[in-house]
Amino acid sequence: MKDFIYNIPTKVYFGKDQMGNLGTELSKYGKRVLLTYGGGSIKKTGLYDQAMAEMKKAGLEVFELSGIEPNPRIGSVRKGAEMCKEHNIDVLLAIGGGSTIDATKWIAASACVEHDAWDFFTKGAVVEKALPIVTILTLAATGSEMNFGGVISNPETQDKLAASSQLLFPKASFLNPEVTYTVSKYQTACGSADILSHIFEIYFNAEGSMFMLDSIMEGLMKTVIKYAPIAIAEPENYEARANLMWASSWGISGLIRAVQTCAWSCHPMEHELSAVYDITHGLGLAILTPRWMQYCLDESTVDRYVKLGVNVFGIDASLPPMEIAEKAIEATADFLFNKLGLDDTFTKVGIKEEDFDIMAQKACRKGCIAGFKTLYAEDVKKIYEMCL
Amino acid sequence: MKDFIYNIPTKVYFGKDQMGNLGTELSKYGKRVLLTYGGGSIKKTGLYDQAMAEMKKAGLEVFELSGIEPNPRIGSVRKGAEMCKEHNIDVLLAIGGGSTIDATKWIAASACVEHDAWDFFTKGAVVEKALPIVTILTLAATGSEMNFGGVISNPETQDKLAASSQLLFPKASFLNPEVTYTVSKYQTACGSADILSHIFEIYFNAEGSMFMLDSIMEGLMKTVIKYAPIAIAEPENYEARANLMWASSWGISGLIRAVQTCAWSCHPMEHELSAVYDITHGLGLAILTPRWMQYCLDESTVDRYVKLGVNVFGIDASLPPMEIAEKAIEATADFLFNKLGLDDTFTKVGIKEEDFDIMAQKACRKGCIAGFKTLYAEDVKKIYEMCL
Repeated sequence: MKDFIYNIPTKVYFGKDQMGNLGTELSKYGKRVLLTYGGGSIKKTGLYDQAMAEMKKAGLEVFELSGIEPNPRIGSVRKGAEMCKEHNIDVLLAIGGGSTIDATKWIAASACVEHDAWDFFTKGAVVEKALPIVTILTLAATGSEMNFGGVISNPETQDKLAASSQLLFPKASFLNPEVTYTVSKYQTACGSADILSHIFEIYFNAEGSMFMLDSIMEGLMKTVIKYAPIAIAEPENYEARANLMWASSWGISGLIRAVQTCAWSCHPMEHELSAVYDITHGLGLAILTPRWMQYCLDESTVDRYVKLGVNVFGIDASLPPMEIAEKAIEATADFLFNKLGLDDTFTKVGIKEEDFDIMAQKACRKGCIAGFKTLYAEDVKKIYEMCL
Repeated sequence: MKDFIYNIPTKVYFGKDQMGNLGTELSKYGKRVLLTYGGGSIKKTGLYDQAMAEMKKAGLEVFELSGIEPNPRIGSVRKGAEMCKEHNIDVLLAIGGGSTIDATKWIAASACVEHDAWDFFTKGAVVEKALPIVTILTLAATGSEMNFGGVISNPETQDKLAASSQLLFPKASFLNPEVTYTVSKYQTACGSADILSHIFEIYFNAEGSMFMLDSIMEGLMKTVIKYAPIAIAEPENYEARANLMWASSWGISGLIRAVQTCAWSCHPMEHELSAVYDITHGLGLAILTPRWMQYCLDESTVDRYVKLGVNVFGIDASLPPMEIAEKAIEATADFLFNKLGLDDTFTKVGIKEEDFDIMAQKACRKGCIAGFKTLYAEDVKKIYEMCL
């Protein structure tokens, strides 16, 4: 077991009646707010008006950057950073899902430097200062509301890259499960696949991790498996939305990542898909995950599958390990494709074989994916082929 | 499900090689440190010398308050507060278990006021300012290293009272499982009983809580049940000590307390025992817990016992609920008295029937214990009698 530092300084206001605290939270950092959001669904749901009213009440001056893309682009980051400089912004308020929050993190960092925002991703530029961020979460998925990383796409280079800094934790996040009532069945399914994938990436670990954290991860996985189908069937089920929302934050948090001993696998393979095809991240992960599990299964890795199968899917522990492992893969696929109703092949979502070579190369831009099992470009290509 | 605010700002340095960060952490707050500790075992183990060396390296000036009692007393708090004022202390470093850390929290608060320290417990005095605290944990038990409360005894009035403030979170805590290798089998058992009791107090809740947090609590309970006997049998088992240590912090943290809907039960009943008899807190809790469970079990409460029995103790879910509940109580008692080897009756530890009336009255000083089941003085007395 390796040493770790645990540090999640984000304060979370969870529940139905927390918006009254928004003005106070923002006012801690100044008077001039840059509000960031995506396509404008927050105007339809009333969340925009509610936030504006709270900020007005607190006497804040609000500037706006709308139109942040799903798979947010470096262009939006650059634009936001310019706005912060131009208007002397004190604090950022992101209203949205992981895309908006990720972009806002990098706006907060880029606003404090003279170099180009993309340098944080490709030139090893380090965050030494960042504007404070507050978030209002509208989608349970990425965990960005309570962590310190963000993923940004660059359409010019067809790159989608992640970077992080301790300075990019939101100061506070507002999590109201009711806000997610309007999330479509499809986006709820994709978000749930994303949450599950984050936990898988850590749970499937090269080294034995910590029993306590394994147990917590198993609890989080059971939560997603139990409540995602309920939220899809009954979009206004508070209990389901609340459990998914809080599980999304913890599923990628510094608590369970503490025991991570190797790189993630499905995420880098998926980032190449959504960089090229702009498909929803969670959908790409869903298609890849059971194939990746199958590809990595052998005598040396079977133990982890057995633990997952028995503790999360309730598979009979007395069966032979390989049989439990196969059943665990089946149960994962059943959850993703039948219970969540997501498309189960690349063919169905329009991803073409002709791009496999270049995507596999890019996924292994560091030579390989040094994950649960080390994957080279040829391995990644084979996994892509299993997804056809 | 009620709204909650999640906020654990404490930074945790977990593992074998973290002490090199001590000087930097303390230096954030100033140059003058008050070091607090208990009976001096930290001198035998070398931890004192190690901490002093790190502080010297960082150029800090160190003052010392030793002799903080198990069940720490208000006298120590007063003395520490005076020292802070006299020496213009910038930051407190507590090295010890929950007792030392609890006392240090109230020293930190009392150092910033003119009124008597006991007023925080009996006169509703509110903490408006506190000196920063850093801790080095030496015992897995109370969770004080990552929460905002503390329990102090007043021998003059035979009171043992808890109070809390958001300002009393340690800024940073150092958790090195190796430090607990020297904790005796008995103290390891008592600490483990304390951790389990914290989780029980929240898990046994009048209202249905959140599935995700239930799952996490079940994971924490399984961790204690698995590793406490290992740590007792093999005091230098790193994995066991590490799992217990991290479970102790989370077992009473703001994460799972978020769903708490009613007062705790065994803790107030136990505080009266240790206020009068000065027995180890975890031992008192161990003796009380299975009796309290038995006393509260009926058709209206059985569901919670069933969940505990099936999910934590692995009892066959197809049995009748009442039978599962009885087996869950037996399994709890078996863990506490057989696996941990703790004394199972008041008689064995010298607690006498003649004190039951006054202790039961005091446990219900607010009229009753408004917990999982509401307990009046007569109920508490009956539970005490079951412990004879």
